[in-house]
Amino acid sequence: MSPQPSPVTGFEQLRRIESSRIFQSVVIGIIILSALTIGAKTYELPSLVEGSLSVMDNAITIFFLIEILFRFAACPNKKRFLMDGWNLFDTLVVVGSLVPLDNSDAVLLGRLLRVFRVLRLISVVPELRFLINSLLKAIPRMGYIALLMFIIFYIYAAMGSMFFASVDENLWGDVAIAMLTLFRVATFEDWTDVMYATMEQYPLSWIYYLTFIFLTAFVFLNMMIGAILEVMSEEQNAKQAQQAHDERDEIARQLKAVQEQLQELTKQISERSGGR
Amino acid sequence: MSPQPSPVTGFEQLRRIESSRIFQSVVIGIIILSALTIGAKTYELPSLVEGSLSVMDNAITIFFLIEILFRFAACPNKKRFLMDGWNLFDTLVVVGSLVPLDNSDAVLLGRLLRVFRVLRLISVVPELRFLINSLLKAIPRMGYIALLMFIIFYIYAAMGSMFFASVDENLWGDVAIAMLTLFRVATFEDWTDVMYATMEQYPLSWIYYLTFIFLTAFVFLNMMIGAILEVMSEEQNAKQAQQAHDERDEIARQLKAVQEQLQELTKQISERSGGR
Amino acid sequence: MSPQPSPVTGFEQLRRIESSRIFQSVVIGIIILSALTIGAKTYELPSLVEGSLSVMDNAITIFFLIEILFRFAACPNKKRFLMDGWNLFDTLVVVGSLVPLDNSDAVLLGRLLRVFRVLRLISVVPELRFLINSLLKAIPRMGYIALLMFIIFYIYAAMGSMFFASVDENLWGDVAIAMLTLFRVATFEDWTDVMYATMEQYPLSWIYYLTFIFLTAFVFLNMMIGAILEVMSEEQNAKQAQQAHDERDEIARQLKAVQEQLQELTKQISERSGGR
Amino acid sequence: MSPQPSPVTGFEQLRRIESSRIFQSVVIGIIILSALTIGAKTYELPSLVEGSLSVMDNAITIFFLIEILFRFAACPNKKRFLMDGWNLFDTLVVVGSLVPLDNSDAVLLGRLLRVFRVLRLISVVPELRFLINSLLKAIPRMGYIALLMFIIFYIYAAMGSMFFASVDENLWGDVAIAMLTLFRVATFEDWTDVMYATMEQYPLSWIYYLTFIFLTAFVFLNMMIGAILEVMSEEQNAKQAQQAHDERDEIARQLKAVQEQLQELTKQISERSGGR
Repeated sequence: MSPQPSPVTGFEQLRRIESSRIFQSVVIGIIILSALTIGAKTYELPSLVEGSLSVMDNAITIFFLIEILFRFAACPNKKRFLMDGWNLFDTLVVVGSLVPLDNSDAVLLGRLLRVFRVLRLISVVPELRFLINSLLKAIPRMGYIALLMFIIFYIYAAMGSMFFASVDENLWGDVAIAMLTLFRVATFEDWTDVMYATMEQYPLSWIYYLTFIFLTAFVFLNMMIGAILEVMSEEQNAKQAQQAHDERDEIARQLKAVQEQLQELTKQISERSGGR
Repeated sequence: MSPQPSPVTGFEQLRRIESSRIFQSVVIGIIILSALTIGAKTYELPSLVEGSLSVMDNAITIFFLIEILFRFAACPNKKRFLMDGWNLFDTLVVVGSLVPLDNSDAVLLGRLLRVFRVLRLISVVPELRFLINSLLKAIPRMGYIALLMFIIFYIYAAMGSMFFASVDENLWGDVAIAMLTLFRVATFEDWTDVMYATMEQYPLSWIYYLTFIFLTAFVFLNMMIGAILEVMSEEQNAKQAQQAHDERDEIARQLKAVQEQLQELTKQISERSGGR
Repeated sequence: MSPQPSPVTGFEQLRRIESSRIFQSVVIGIIILSALTIGAKTYELPSLVEGSLSVMDNAITIFFLIEILFRFAACPNKKRFLMDGWNLFDTLVVVGSLVPLDNSDAVLLGRLLRVFRVLRLISVVPELRFLINSLLKAIPRMGYIALLMFIIFYIYAAMGSMFFASVDENLWGDVAIAMLTLFRVATFEDWTDVMYATMEQYPLSWIYYLTFIFLTAFVFLNMMIGAILEVMSEEQNAKQAQQAHDERDEIARQLKAVQEQLQELTKQISERSGGR
Repeated sequence: MSPQPSPVTGFEQLRRIESSRIFQSVVIGIIILSALTIGAKTYELPSLVEGSLSVMDNAITIFFLIEILFRFAACPNKKRFLMDGWNLFDTLVVVGSLVPLDNSDAVLLGRLLRVFRVLRLISVVPELRFLINSLLKAIPRMGYIALLMFIIFYIYAAMGSMFFASVDENLWGDVAIAMLTLFRVATFEDWTDVMYATMEQYPLSWIYYLTFIFLTAFVFLNMMIGAILEVMSEEQNAKQAQQAHDERDEIARQLKAVQEQLQELTKQISERSGGR
């Protein structure tokens, strides 16, 4: 806005570049290119293409490293930069890619870290970052319901592995396997196959499955309704209600003014009467 | 409204016919007939019936052509007619049916275009058109959530094809096939079969499936709740809140009038006092 | 309430009995007994029990006949009795059971009519009747969405039977069978089996299934949200909004009274001034 | 709060300990330990570990017994303690574990009772107790809908076992088995397998399945919407509406005061006029 651009420090210039749309677009473009590279590697490719992909991969790693250093340099508050979860995540993913890969295990880990680069899209696009933050806010309110669900699963799994372990060791062998089987039942995935197998030995075991399904569905449904209501009561009518409250406040204030005017008037008249 | 109907131009007459209920009903009837013809062709029919169906098909094509020309003639603003998406769609479908069909590929394309004629029902019935328009409005607000979903799918697909490609080439061969497999898992369609296969090689791979299911279900649930809330805050209480606001406004205006009356009165009295 | 019970007519007595709790309970009890009889007949029973079930069945039929005649006699407005859907339904079910059963087809029909006796529970218990009436009210508002869904299904079914009939005649043979297959896909029931079969011949046919699933899920979701919103705007805030409106109305009326009092006062004072 | 701690009775001390955070934490810890013990027993363990688990199990039983006696002693109102459902449940579970286990049936029952110890977590953590109480409150409002659902299931099961018993005795043998099969259809679990089997004998039986699915889904959807609305109208706007109502009340009261002041003023002026 100021006409003299001369005394702009190098630091200012860094910040300008960092927050410019072109810089952001380039970074987003490189991340998408990185994602495509990762996807391309899952196909069988001629060795020439695979070689150039490796070169590109290294180039992207170096670009990301420079980008993060640049962002760090452009950030006025270095400490806050390091405290921000998104920046830490970005740094971790980029630094992780730098580790030289020798044995096969490390290769797999390196490739895995490269996959997580796609998540950098979330840390770079503000709308996605906002979305994730609002999703994270929804987690604690579901905490106790999740605990309740876990208790239901645990009790049914303990009962299941107690009774049905003899029917099918692969489905009810121990409490952990039984919980996985129950999660399968909760998603309705071939749950009747599981039930028919146990019903041959325990004809009344359908009670076990039906009560489990009803319990989990009931708790889940109530959780969903609860979540909808909670978000609603927080966000929805708040603005309108506030406006209505303010308007009523204004009316009440005007009314008080009227009453005061009237008192004043009454006093005047009675004074005039008395003064006579 | 005017009593003399004589100077009605031919153009006026066209518009009258076009907006008449009989014309609309005839068009809807022909579209339904066209839909039935398309359905009938999927059955094995005696050649006589098939022949008459072909004749009818041509008759319907010609009717639609005339109808569109008629509508174009009846439209007062030719440019706006061509800009309207529904009209363009109608024209495309009808003109497409006119292309002579020689080789087998074109035959299939021709039949496909005839199928899309059923969609003309939406462009002709105003309630359906309104419905589609309101559905289209819902798409942008789901944009970033869809992008987030795509990122989750892409990362899991890349990881899946990295680790599980050796287990089942048909399910995890490359990143595209893996995304299709993950969509299958997200619909709970025989997802345990997929999981049990990979668990034989990677016993801890249930973590992969469970985190994926929880993530997608959680994001989907929040998307649904968000969509409900957004529509609500837009449409629902708006009318009532407006009415309440107007009523409160009216009350505030009346109060001001009262205050002015009081001021006037006070002035009068004090003037009378002073004038004494 | 009146102390003299003597001039109660026979008709009055009938109505009293009909609306008494004991009569209602007996009828509900007999209907439940009738339901149990129907259920019991589906088991293999010794001939003695089966014989006594038949006797009981006839006794129930006669009881229902008497009950309906009794209700007809107790109804003050005979015409209205016959116009009521629930009464017509009751009569039809009961009279249907009276038809003598000779050949096997009629036996099946007779048994079917006895099954529908269980529905009489709905016509007798007022809470269930209210519930059904409120469910029936929800049908029209879903009309156009159902039509839209049908159009989507029809177009996809026509396309499906056009392309995939050669893959599996049992799933895509004609447009009707294809619609049933698509309904199966919409419920996620082994839909990948259907898709994998067609993908062998048409590798891109996953687009067909995914667009179909997204379209139907999207329309269904919007229908659900729409239904929730519509019921809400109708029922929910109505009472509170009305109360708030009434209270604001009262305030406005009081304000007018204040203004009139003020005008009166001003007039008095100026008259006194003028009268001086 | 009082500075002299000397006259604190033993009873007071008991209560203090019982409501202290340390005591609560210890109890929760022991319950979790008990749950882990139950889970651990479902694995194949070396006899040494199994032996120590048995010892731990007895120790936990004794701890729970002491804890309940302690709580009973610390409760000021003994009668109310016994009337509370949670306490009764706790006592039952703990006393049940004390019964000596000789024959194998009792062993299973004893193990089952130990599983229910995990439920003690709900009775001890106040947040979970509150959650369960609020879930229990939701049950009655779903009563008549559940009854309606049961009637639908019963009628379809009676019809199903009437017609389809000859197709598959295992799925449609009697009305109870048929209801289980219908529940399977309602969860979309391999429902097309069931349908295709009956369609071979009764080609039109798809009508049976489709009407059943639509009916149950429609009733379920309406139940869900109804539940959401009912909870909403109860809880949500209540507070805001009450506040708005109070504020409007306050305004109306102020207005009345204004009117009274005006009347007083008018009377004064006219008296002065008259008194002249």
